[in-house]
Amino acid sequence: MFPFRVMNQEDVKQVLDMKNVISIVEEAYVLKEKKEASLFPMVFHEFERGKADMDIKSGHLTGANIFGLKLVSWFGENPSKNLPAIIGSVLVLDSRTGAPLGLLSGEQITLMRTGAAGGIGAKYLARRESENLLLIGSGHLGPYQILATLMSMENIKNVVVYNATSSEKANAFCESIKDRLLEMLEPYKKDSEYYQMMLSRINIPFNATDNVQRATEEADIIITATPSHKPLIMKEWVKPGTHFSCVGADMEGKQEIDYNLFSVARVFVDDVTQAINVGETEVPFQKGIITKEDIISEIGSVILGNTSGRLTDKDITIYDSTGIALQDLITANYILEKANEKGIGVVASF
Amino acid sequence: MFPFRVMNQEDVKQVLDMKNVISIVEEAYVLKEKKEASLFPMVFHEFERGKADMDIKSGHLTGANIFGLKLVSWFGENPSKNLPAIIGSVLVLDSRTGAPLGLLSGEQITLMRTGAAGGIGAKYLARRESENLLLIGSGHLGPYQILATLMSMENIKNVVVYNATSSEKANAFCESIKDRLLEMLEPYKKDSEYYQMMLSRINIPFNATDNVQRATEEADIIITATPSHKPLIMKEWVKPGTHFSCVGADMEGKQEIDYNLFSVARVFVDDVTQAINVGETEVPFQKGIITKEDIISEIGSVILGNTSGRLTDKDITIYDSTGIALQDLITANYILEKANEKGIGVVASF
Repeated sequence: MFPFRVMNQEDVKQVLDMKNVISIVEEAYVLKEKKEASLFPMVFHEFERGKADMDIKSGHLTGANIFGLKLVSWFGENPSKNLPAIIGSVLVLDSRTGAPLGLLSGEQITLMRTGAAGGIGAKYLARRESENLLLIGSGHLGPYQILATLMSMENIKNVVVYNATSSEKANAFCESIKDRLLEMLEPYKKDSEYYQMMLSRINIPFNATDNVQRATEEADIIITATPSHKPLIMKEWVKPGTHFSCVGADMEGKQEIDYNLFSVARVFVDDVTQAINVGETEVPFQKGIITKEDIISEIGSVILGNTSGRLTDKDITIYDSTGIALQDLITANYILEKANEKGIGVVASF
Repeated sequence: MFPFRVMNQEDVKQVLDMKNVISIVEEAYVLKEKKEASLFPMVFHEFERGKADMDIKSGHLTGANIFGLKLVSWFGENPSKNLPAIIGSVLVLDSRTGAPLGLLSGEQITLMRTGAAGGIGAKYLARRESENLLLIGSGHLGPYQILATLMSMENIKNVVVYNATSSEKANAFCESIKDRLLEMLEPYKKDSEYYQMMLSRINIPFNATDNVQRATEEADIIITATPSHKPLIMKEWVKPGTHFSCVGADMEGKQEIDYNLFSVARVFVDDVTQAINVGETEVPFQKGIITKEDIISEIGSVILGNTSGRLTDKDITIYDSTGIALQDLITANYILEKANEKGIGVVASF
C-alpha cells in the first residue's frame, strides 16, 4: 500500500504563498539548467477547435527525487454550466520507486507558478529602477503577475492595465486589485517587516487604459497574460530598455506581441523546445525572424549567473514563459511537504 | 467542487471480472475503429537504462465521454525494497467538461485488460477448434491470459507453459494455476450455468515444458507474455494454422517471436503506430520484413466484421497487442460506474 495525498484547490491555497513559489520556481529553472531536471514531450489534444482542448506536461526533477505530470483541460463552454473553463490535475510520484505521492488540483498551482515566472523574468531581466508596469490582460492570471513583480522589483510606482476586448473588465480589475493583493499577502502578516514592505509596494496607483500605445511608450516592464492569437503591442511603440514577460502563449498560434520585437530584443525562454513550438517565440521562429541560436539562453542560466541578462539599460529583453511541468511539479512537491506537516487534504492509497 | 473517486488495487479487484473486461475491451477496439476514440502520442522516459522507466499513455473515448491517461513506472530494484516493480495510476476525466472522474490503481486494470487482449486475439483469429494452448512466460500476466483464452475458446484441451529462464517457475506456475483460475471465477458463482461451464473448461492439464520447439510444433494458439528482447519461438517450428497473441512487447527493442514469422503470417495489431514503434511488429518493421501496408488491419476492424481474420485453416495469424490507453480508460470507467453504485473507494474532490 502506498499512501498519498489528494488535495483540492482550498487545500492548496492554505499552504501556498507567492514568495516561496518564486523561490522554488527559480530552483526548478536552476535544476533544469544543471541537467538535474528534464522535460518529457508535451501531449496536446484539441477536442473541438477553439472550444475545448487539453495538454499533458510531464517531467522529472532528479534533484528533488520526483517526477510526474500536469493534465490541464480547457472547455470554453464550462462557465455556462457553472464550471470553471480550466481544470487541472497534478500527479506527483517518487522518482526512486515510482510510488505516487500526491494528486493535486492544478488551478491554483498554475496561477501561482505562472505569476512567479512573470516576476522572475522581471527580476533577472528588467532594469532595477523600473517604475512603470503595464499588464496586458485582466484575467485570472493578472493579480499573480502583479504580486510576483512587486515582490521582485523594488521601485514600481505605477501599474497600468489594458484589456484589448473590454475596458470595463480592465476597470473592474483595477478597482478590486488592491483587495486581491492584500488577501495574497495574508501569509506574511506574521513577518511584520516583510508585510509592511509589501503593503507599501502595493500602495501605488492601478489604472486601466484604452490607449495601449501610450501605455507601452511609458512602460518599463510589460507583462502579457492573455489568450491572444494576434499581437497586441507593436514594435514601434516600445522604448529602449523595456522588459517583456510573456506568459500567455502556450499553444500553437497564440501570440501577444509583434514578432518583429524578436529581431531587436535579447530573448530568454523557460524551455527552448516548448518556446519554439508553442510559446511567444513560435511565430517569430516560424517566420524566420529568429533561429534557435538567437535565443540567448534559458532563464535558469541567467539565474545561475552563467549568462548575462541585459547588457545595457537600452536593451529590450523578452522572457518567453511557456510554462513547464517542472514548475508545477516542484510547487506540488512543496505543497505536499507542507500538507504532510499540517495534515491537510485527504490521504488515499494504492 | 468536483467529487471523484480514488480506488486502490483491492477496490478495483472487487468490481472487475474477466468476462466483462473482454467485452468492454472489445468495445474500446470497436470505438477506435469507428473513429469514436483516439490515442494521443505516448510519452516514454528511461530513468536508468534497463533499471527504471515510465510511460504515459493517453487517449479519448468520444463514444464513452471520457479521456485520460495511464502512467506506469517500472523500477527493477523495487522488489528488494518490498515494493512492486510496476506501479500504475489511471486518471479518468469527463470529456464534456474536463472534470476528473477518478484516479485508480493501474496494476489490476493492466493485468485484466492485457489478459482480455490476448483472449480477444484468439477469439477472432485462432481456429475455432484449437485444442492446444502454449503460454510463453509464467509471470503475473499468465493467469489472465489463460483465463481470457479459455473464456474465448470452447475447445482448449491442453495448456503448456514455457519459461525461457526458469523451468522451476514454469512448474510452480502450473501447480498453482488452477487455484488462481478458480479465484478469478468467483464472481460467476451466482451464474451457475456459466460457472459450471468455466469449471469444466479449466479442468484440463497444465504442464510446464523445457522443450519449446516441440511445444510450438504441437500448439494451435501461442500466447507470448514475457519481457524478452530476443525471439523465443523460431519460424521453422510453427505449424500452419497457428495463432499468436503477442502481448509482451511494449517498448523499443522488445521481441518475443522470430521476425521472419511476419513474412508468412496475417498480422493484426491494436494500434498501427504503437505496433511499429514499440510492439512485436517493431523489429520486423525495422528490418523491412513488413511495411505498414502489410498489416492487415487493427483488431477493431475484425471485431466489426469489416476485415476477415484468418482466410483458411492453414493461415498463421499474429495479433500484436501493444496495450493502448483506450483499454485502460474504458476499463477504469467501467470500474467507476460499478464503484459509484456500490460505494467502493475513497471520494475526494477538487
